[in-house]
Amino acid sequence: MPPILVVGSVAYDTVKTPFGEASEALGGSATYFSVSAGFFAHVSLVAAVGQDFKEEDWRFLESRNIDLQGLKRVDGKTFRWVGEYGYDLNDARTLDTQLNVLAEFQPNLSDAHRDIKHVFLGNLDPKIQRDVLAQVTKPQLVACDTMNYWINGHFNSLLETLRRVDILIINDAEARQLTRESNLIRAARKIHGWGPGTVVVKRGEYGALMFQRDVQGRISVFGTPAYPLEDIFDPTGAGDTFAGGFMGYLAGVGRSDWASLRQAVVFGSVMASFNVEKFSLDRLRNLTFTEIELRYKEFKEMTRIDDVVEWQPDSRV
Amino acid sequence: MPPILVVGSVAYDTVKTPFGEASEALGGSATYFSVSAGFFAHVSLVAAVGQDFKEEDWRFLESRNIDLQGLKRVDGKTFRWVGEYGYDLNDARTLDTQLNVLAEFQPNLSDAHRDIKHVFLGNLDPKIQRDVLAQVTKPQLVACDTMNYWINGHFNSLLETLRRVDILIINDAEARQLTRESNLIRAARKIHGWGPGTVVVKRGEYGALMFQRDVQGRISVFGTPAYPLEDIFDPTGAGDTFAGGFMGYLAGVGRSDWASLRQAVVFGSVMASFNVEKFSLDRLRNLTFTEIELRYKEFKEMTRIDDVVEWQPDSRV
Repeated sequence: MPPILVVGSVAYDTVKTPFGEASEALGGSATYFSVSAGFFAHVSLVAAVGQDFKEEDWRFLESRNIDLQGLKRVDGKTFRWVGEYGYDLNDARTLDTQLNVLAEFQPNLSDAHRDIKHVFLGNLDPKIQRDVLAQVTKPQLVACDTMNYWINGHFNSLLETLRRVDILIINDAEARQLTRESNLIRAARKIHGWGPGTVVVKRGEYGALMFQRDVQGRISVFGTPAYPLEDIFDPTGAGDTFAGGFMGYLAGVGRSDWASLRQAVVFGSVMASFNVEKFSLDRLRNLTFTEIELRYKEFKEMTRIDDVVEWQPDSRV
Repeated sequence: MPPILVVGSVAYDTVKTPFGEASEALGGSATYFSVSAGFFAHVSLVAAVGQDFKEEDWRFLESRNIDLQGLKRVDGKTFRWVGEYGYDLNDARTLDTQLNVLAEFQPNLSDAHRDIKHVFLGNLDPKIQRDVLAQVTKPQLVACDTMNYWINGHFNSLLETLRRVDILIINDAEARQLTRESNLIRAARKIHGWGPGTVVVKRGEYGALMFQRDVQGRISVFGTPAYPLEDIFDPTGAGDTFAGGFMGYLAGVGRSDWASLRQAVVFGSVMASFNVEKFSLDRLRNLTFTEIELRYKEFKEMTRIDDVVEWQPDSRV
């Protein structure tokens, strides 16, 4: 199975939502991505953890189709994030961030990892994202994520990374902030001009939009609503879980044509919809393939437009 | 062609957006609805205007597949609405409302109008909505709209109207306000319990969701993103234009099965997407059937999910 390389954070998260809280739970962008992508393809995880990283978490990741040769256990503590969500569950309030071992993180790829063709650059310093990519011999499909911190403080460095990226996966607020365009079509066009031919805009409870510019400069758009859920417990990691389903599917089928990218957006949405149903990674831990396939079919059913009657305009107007 | 009866407001709107302004332009919920629905079916408009209602506006409506026997010209001035939109274009700020002739509006249906099967109760006092409906002999498909003013001040009267309504077409903020449920699935379920078996939730730039409860109590969901537009000039009337495309299509094809309702949501979205491209009714004035059909096809293309590769889960996890 074609492997994916992911670089990002592995963390212990303490999260409070109106529906409960999780303390020191396994999290981090690369963790959510890997567990999600692991349902579709073999994942090589490149990250650093501290001496406090639990043996059971290591074993859990190993059990999920994830190669941990690139997960370095170094002196110090694992990255910590403390956040909380209000009732609308859209915006996380970060209460505390302790970079710990991530502060000195300098990924050094093994020879095997350098040959991987599918790369996901998780939310990290754009300089580190570039350093990782520079070590990959012949990347075929490179996607990346980022966040407001890098957009504000490292804009030029981020642009330099984007030049080498095929797919930017970003949420709508970040897309607007990055491009200073409130309209998403204009935002996507600007991003296309910076490098990524494909832009996937995550809109939380409103679903996702994908824009692609072809060689003639024409823009194709794909859109899907989010899977409607009655109970959303914890949105932490939804974006990374989406990216994991998206890239995992593409690596799994070994395709990147427009129709496959559309399917990938749906698989990303499917995985994110599961992830928010429980705290932390709890829902992904006991998720089955049958459930993934069923929800994928529900997505198709939910969005399908059939021509029952061919509409004939009335001639009187 | 099966006709539709609509009751609502005909107004002169003064609207300011960041992109310009329109002064004393033809507007009102029943006007937008009728012009939009007139592309699909014959519309009978029931409303009142004042002595100041312009001859050219009367002739324009007449020219659009709209029967004006129920449009009463009475003493006084036509309803006026003054509003403005900020850059996000989602929420209108009402600066002034002058009910004028609407204050005394008591619709009295002609015999021909009483026989109409498709009824749209535009945003009005729920008591008046009920009075109109009581005059219809054998309504087959009744949809209605409402707004925060009636939800807050006339809640019980609104519930009494809803008991007789098949389809509630409402925006997401109003759905939440009406049901005091922030989650839209729960909100729809509550509304189903009050009467309407079908709930269409308009979400502005995020598209629309439709919920239907069948006789066994099972809920079906349909969702579509909005048509992505680069320039949105004036959102005034978008909701009524949506309702016009939705009900117009259903009346035009004479069906109300689930697949046709889904198509109707798309035609509603198509019509609303055109309406916001220019000020007031300007875009609908020169819109053609060919443009409507083309955009409907673009919607299908934008949301279609094709199984390029049948995904086979990896057995290693």
